[in-house]
Amino acid sequence: MSTMIQVTEPTMVLNEEVCKSNIARMAAKAKAANVVFRPHFKTHQSREIGEWFRASGVDKITVSSLNMAMKFAEWGWNDITVAFPVNCLEHEKINALAAKIRLNLLLVHSEGARQLSECLKYPVGVYLGVDTGYHRDGVDAGNYEKIERIMNIVAPDVNIKFEGFLTHAGHTYNARSKEEILQIHKDNLRMLKNIKERYIDRYPQLKISLGDTPSCSLADRFGVADEIRPGNFVFYDVTQLKIGSCDWYNIALAVKCPVVDINRHRNEAVIYGGGVHFSKDRIDRPGNRPLYGMVAENHNDYWGNIISGVELVSLSQEHGVMHCTDDFLDRLHVGDVVTVLPVHSCMTADLMKIYHMNDGKTAAHI
Amino acid sequence: MSTMIQVTEPTMVLNEEVCKSNIARMAAKAKAANVVFRPHFKTHQSREIGEWFRASGVDKITVSSLNMAMKFAEWGWNDITVAFPVNCLEHEKINALAAKIRLNLLLVHSEGARQLSECLKYPVGVYLGVDTGYHRDGVDAGNYEKIERIMNIVAPDVNIKFEGFLTHAGHTYNARSKEEILQIHKDNLRMLKNIKERYIDRYPQLKISLGDTPSCSLADRFGVADEIRPGNFVFYDVTQLKIGSCDWYNIALAVKCPVVDINRHRNEAVIYGGGVHFSKDRIDRPGNRPLYGMVAENHNDYWGNIISGVELVSLSQEHGVMHCTDDFLDRLHVGDVVTVLPVHSCMTADLMKIYHMNDGKTAAHI
Repeated sequence: MSTMIQVTEPTMVLNEEVCKSNIARMAAKAKAANVVFRPHFKTHQSREIGEWFRASGVDKITVSSLNMAMKFAEWGWNDITVAFPVNCLEHEKINALAAKIRLNLLLVHSEGARQLSECLKYPVGVYLGVDTGYHRDGVDAGNYEKIERIMNIVAPDVNIKFEGFLTHAGHTYNARSKEEILQIHKDNLRMLKNIKERYIDRYPQLKISLGDTPSCSLADRFGVADEIRPGNFVFYDVTQLKIGSCDWYNIALAVKCPVVDINRHRNEAVIYGGGVHFSKDRIDRPGNRPLYGMVAENHNDYWGNIISGVELVSLSQEHGVMHCTDDFLDRLHVGDVVTVLPVHSCMTADLMKIYHMNDGKTAAHI
Repeated sequence: MSTMIQVTEPTMVLNEEVCKSNIARMAAKAKAANVVFRPHFKTHQSREIGEWFRASGVDKITVSSLNMAMKFAEWGWNDITVAFPVNCLEHEKINALAAKIRLNLLLVHSEGARQLSECLKYPVGVYLGVDTGYHRDGVDAGNYEKIERIMNIVAPDVNIKFEGFLTHAGHTYNARSKEEILQIHKDNLRMLKNIKERYIDRYPQLKISLGDTPSCSLADRFGVADEIRPGNFVFYDVTQLKIGSCDWYNIALAVKCPVVDINRHRNEAVIYGGGVHFSKDRIDRPGNRPLYGMVAENHNDYWGNIISGVELVSLSQEHGVMHCTDDFLDRLHVGDVVTVLPVHSCMTADLMKIYHMNDGKTAAHI
């Protein structure tokens, strides 16, 4: 393996092989479970990585903003679900997309539904967003009155096709074991089954769409679901590792950072790599000990095992503070480069923008 | 006041008048205290806002990366301190800058000092970074052995001029009262005085540089210091408000966000505005109740009073969850726009990139 990536400042590195194998594994799982694979592209937001999905047979995608949808439409994707509550202040983008591609939007509130009906000039599909326990957005899974209010607003609109129900069980991210994730997945499927049974006569074609990386990584069966929309699995990260949805060798993304200070008396080193590189996303741990990243052995352009006891424990704008073991400090020098696995790869990729690969190739984030 | 800013998606708004008055006030304070005003430009990173400083008589600036230094050098700034531990992996940038402008670098470790001495081709000034209690980077203020090791490495180098000592009392950000901040400032000045007295005979020209927005906002006297380098004060934010270094009407930066869902039974609303807009910086509060932003009354293109009890309490990639009062929800609708004051304006500006002002003017972040 050559070392083609010159690191002089924080540099995001993508292990192409690991990433492609993450894609292939999820595509194969969807196929085996007989569900549509509509991956969420918000994680990578890259034209090139999108093509790796296309090579795996993917032709339907999910994004989380109309801006992303416009970019991927420009890059030849013509079946896109925007899995974010519809924002009709952006009616110009909605209509520009609806005129051009097969666009699915998300309704979570009757006011949004009414506004969409008023502004639409071209046909779209809509999913009704249901809350199965995450409690961020969407209609409570058991609130049929609110569900039907939205259905009844869009029913007479010839430009709106009701496609079904969509959920994001984001509360799997708060789980701390595989069993807990699989229990959430099971509860999720049960609630979605109730909804499907209630409305299948009115909408015989209705679909159920779900998608969060923890459930999709650990479960093999998707019960009532017709479609899965995981996103983060393309890279994984330390959060997924900690909650048990991936192994360390599935993590495809890291940031290589120069070491700029070492403070042995505090068992700390300072890296050039801060909140503007990693984001300030963190894993909370007991005793006010947030975790911002883990450190792996350097291995040519990529990395090897995670180094036990070496962690990114604090971030300011450009600085990162690593807590280190004595052994690690014995071999660390100012001017070295360390490999940090981020806590949340979606956020890190959004900040770093350029993916460096070991053959000198790069890919760009929007 | 006209409403020139069309908000259809998260939009960063800068109150030019408030920002200019923050600049003028700090410039006047530095003048009255007879210290050099070398503002930190990492907060705004904007050519246009830089010019507002220049109009206040500023001709020396601070940045936190060589990339920033290169941009501001291109924009006509020729006396720049990079207040980040020197990273000699970037020796090409260091030499390109040193060839062109008056460049000051920061030394915190003997290894970095040695590497700088080896790679330099043009003259630079150096400050020795001392840690007066923040415990992030720098040499402990009382560790004269380590201080002198660095001094002795650079002393024989004709390309390196020892300028003095620099500190960032970032622990003022953990303070929760004005008294606490002023006590840290006082302790800081005392430690710097000891260092100055110890080395003034060896370096009769040596300067003391300090700079954190809380101290510089609240203190009027800077004792032994020759120079101040605050940055965040240009915009301020909710963190500065909470620790007492500004009033609500000093906050110059906000993000206007569309409302996309309302969940009255949880007293919550969801906005289009998440971690990729605000950053995930947060204020920790007892009982695991992080704060990501406060909400102010809309007032034409800008904003008025902060609305008590309405807070951004959770962020995912594109979503923000606001906890709301009943009164606020009575007048809130999906499709409305709310004004959010960020917790950390430096991080938000770095993500949002474009400053919108009420005359339709914009300014760009690097």
